[in-house]
Amino acid sequence: MSYSMVELISKKRDGGALTADELAWIIREYTADVIPDYQLSALLMAIVFNGMTVDELSAWTRAMLYSGEVLDLEAVKKPKIDKHSTGGVGDKISIPLAPIVAACGVAVPMMSGRGLGHTGGTLDKLESIPGFNVLVPPSQFVKQLEDIGVVMVGQTETLVPADRRIYALRDASGTVPSVPLISSSIMSKKLAEDLDGLLLDVKVGSGAFMKTVADAEELARTMVSLGKADGTPVTAILTNMDQPLGRAVGNANEMVESIEVLNGGGPPDIRELTMRFAAEMLLLAGETDPELARSRADDAVTSGAALDVMVRLTEAQGGDASYIDDPAKFEIARKKHVIEADRDGWVEACDAFAIGTAAVRLGAGRARKEDTVDPTVGFMIEAKIGDRVVKGQPLATVSYRDGSRLDGALTLATPAWTIVDHETHVPELVIGTIT
Amino acid sequence: MSYSMVELISKKRDGGALTADELAWIIREYTADVIPDYQLSALLMAIVFNGMTVDELSAWTRAMLYSGEVLDLEAVKKPKIDKHSTGGVGDKISIPLAPIVAACGVAVPMMSGRGLGHTGGTLDKLESIPGFNVLVPPSQFVKQLEDIGVVMVGQTETLVPADRRIYALRDASGTVPSVPLISSSIMSKKLAEDLDGLLLDVKVGSGAFMKTVADAEELARTMVSLGKADGTPVTAILTNMDQPLGRAVGNANEMVESIEVLNGGGPPDIRELTMRFAAEMLLLAGETDPELARSRADDAVTSGAALDVMVRLTEAQGGDASYIDDPAKFEIARKKHVIEADRDGWVEACDAFAIGTAAVRLGAGRARKEDTVDPTVGFMIEAKIGDRVVKGQPLATVSYRDGSRLDGALTLATPAWTIVDHETHVPELVIGTIT
Repeated sequence: MSYSMVELISKKRDGGALTADELAWIIREYTADVIPDYQLSALLMAIVFNGMTVDELSAWTRAMLYSGEVLDLEAVKKPKIDKHSTGGVGDKISIPLAPIVAACGVAVPMMSGRGLGHTGGTLDKLESIPGFNVLVPPSQFVKQLEDIGVVMVGQTETLVPADRRIYALRDASGTVPSVPLISSSIMSKKLAEDLDGLLLDVKVGSGAFMKTVADAEELARTMVSLGKADGTPVTAILTNMDQPLGRAVGNANEMVESIEVLNGGGPPDIRELTMRFAAEMLLLAGETDPELARSRADDAVTSGAALDVMVRLTEAQGGDASYIDDPAKFEIARKKHVIEADRDGWVEACDAFAIGTAAVRLGAGRARKEDTVDPTVGFMIEAKIGDRVVKGQPLATVSYRDGSRLDGALTLATPAWTIVDHETHVPELVIGTIT
Repeated sequence: MSYSMVELISKKRDGGALTADELAWIIREYTADVIPDYQLSALLMAIVFNGMTVDELSAWTRAMLYSGEVLDLEAVKKPKIDKHSTGGVGDKISIPLAPIVAACGVAVPMMSGRGLGHTGGTLDKLESIPGFNVLVPPSQFVKQLEDIGVVMVGQTETLVPADRRIYALRDASGTVPSVPLISSSIMSKKLAEDLDGLLLDVKVGSGAFMKTVADAEELARTMVSLGKADGTPVTAILTNMDQPLGRAVGNANEMVESIEVLNGGGPPDIRELTMRFAAEMLLLAGETDPELARSRADDAVTSGAALDVMVRLTEAQGGDASYIDDPAKFEIARKKHVIEADRDGWVEACDAFAIGTAAVRLGAGRARKEDTVDPTVGFMIEAKIGDRVVKGQPLATVSYRDGSRLDGALTLATPAWTIVDHETHVPELVIGTIT
């Protein structure tokens, strides 16, 4: 069957719904270079305005999912559970989380991304470990899942090629902010992983792509229902992203903080979310008792089993595991600048977007796709929302390599803190759960 | 000044207004191949949804207008008035109109288009005259305006190149139906003609691009205000396009009907609109008395002066003027098919869109840009709205060349007529005037 793309664009523009056949044709012909970019970008903009019906979204996601290979993990005899975050600042949770869950007997085929905009990326953080390879061949992927229970890799070229192309076009055509487009992009990739369950961390707040609870809830509900339509159980947890998670914002320093969590330490917010998510993933894997799920996750840390998985994972993917045993080996830029409180009071805001953008400016992320990441630079946050501070007290320590980049980063980061006269309160980390 | 196109698209998408500098930059960089098609089509779709403010539209139109050369007709010492129609079926009015107005001492630098979709084009009709050349060099353009008072040509390559590119992109990206985009496209080209006044025929109805009076009125008001902003008086007349104008729908047959009007004959609707428009153009040219304007136009026909201008115009542009003197020379396809009334009653509808589309199917217009037009094929309408018919009476005669095309044309055209039991009335030709 063949269609006129102009007619399909016009139908969507005028509020009509496209059929499953029409949507599958669009994905197929675009991926085959038959439909030009300028037609797809016009359609994407019409979708930004008119949205998609439940049926359209499900057909569109399925067409993306089957635009390339789909993983076959039948050989792996454990429940296969992944976790995806919509992206935040200081969000290193995947790194301690995956080994903890794997240590509990679950297979975690984790495919992550790189830093995007002001948010960090799991792959960039893992590459702070010398030698760590985020691309593994398919045969190793399955074997490692069976032996160690976890792989942490990038999206392969053969999985969901349509998303890679469409994502790049959205990024360059101002068509990123759309619940159906965001959810189909995430879910097509996750459903291609042959999972038994998926945990979604949907971030809300200044440092997230979703600024309001209502928007985040809509996105979460949409993704949960896409999972249901595919027969894959999905739990979505809405979490606060008004301020950075934990203390470290960067790459090597976030690895250090992640290893602290695997050793039973780390900042309380990171530790709490990691254990909470681990328990949720065990519930998705078949555990029926929430308290037991939590205590199994706790045991994986206290017994050292999770740290051991992290060591084996690192070795299996070519990384220098001595960095896991001795995190002091991670190189952190030696030049330091301290951002100080300019008055007494309580911290009311510690803007995650400003700090994330400042970290990119330092070199911790990419301003353009071609840029390389400097793993050594970043922020250590010393004062967060709810903290009492006195004038001159450090709010954050900046580790930087290039003095010329520091000024730009400080211009962005210094106004991130709002200090007020009245007492302030630590925001709730978890806003809600949607299943 | 340089901008990020993604940021400008996002601003428009989110309901913001672009500045004059930003819009001028977009037109300039797109015309210079710096902004890719996929970014402009996304912006155009955002404009389809969010419209443009008065300031944006005026800046956008001005930027288009100055994207190329602008005519300088100062040497022509008569008032320069053009007329533009938004496009209809059987709309050959420009052809008798321009010589009548020129015969009254006005210069008519008429730049017309070709058939588009289901609508016919003045250039295609004129080319039914053997040898008629719709491209004249600039020096001839001015001299012919001075000597004969009229040129009838296509848009030159150097005038408003941005519109040519943007129009093609809109056509291919489903972003045609937008009042600001339509009005800026028309007005940038007309304002580039160095006019003293412009008459706009804004068609409303099934055979027009604007289906409702409200939409047509909005388009008319927008174009009139763009003219005002440029200092060019514009009169817009809203006219009915529910059924074809006149009897002939095609190319050669429409030339024959046009020459009938110049000889004082022709179907009453075509004759009436032509004379009404001629009077309006004389008013725009400085005539202050509407009755005198009308009688001057009438005199130009009855005296034979208008027909004489048509002959001289044809000769000047290389056409065989014997066709004007003897319209029987126009070749009309010899194969005929008669569409007959299938019942007694009154004609309630004679759908212009259906008949226009059927004429394209016969070969009178282009399904694709590369197609050539067959001037000999078309429809002669025998029964229009308000007519009483009896079963078996001809509703239209089809002249066709290729039997395989006839079937498709009849499938479209036959249902165009609705015959009812009760008496029906001829619709008002002129719906309103906006200045």
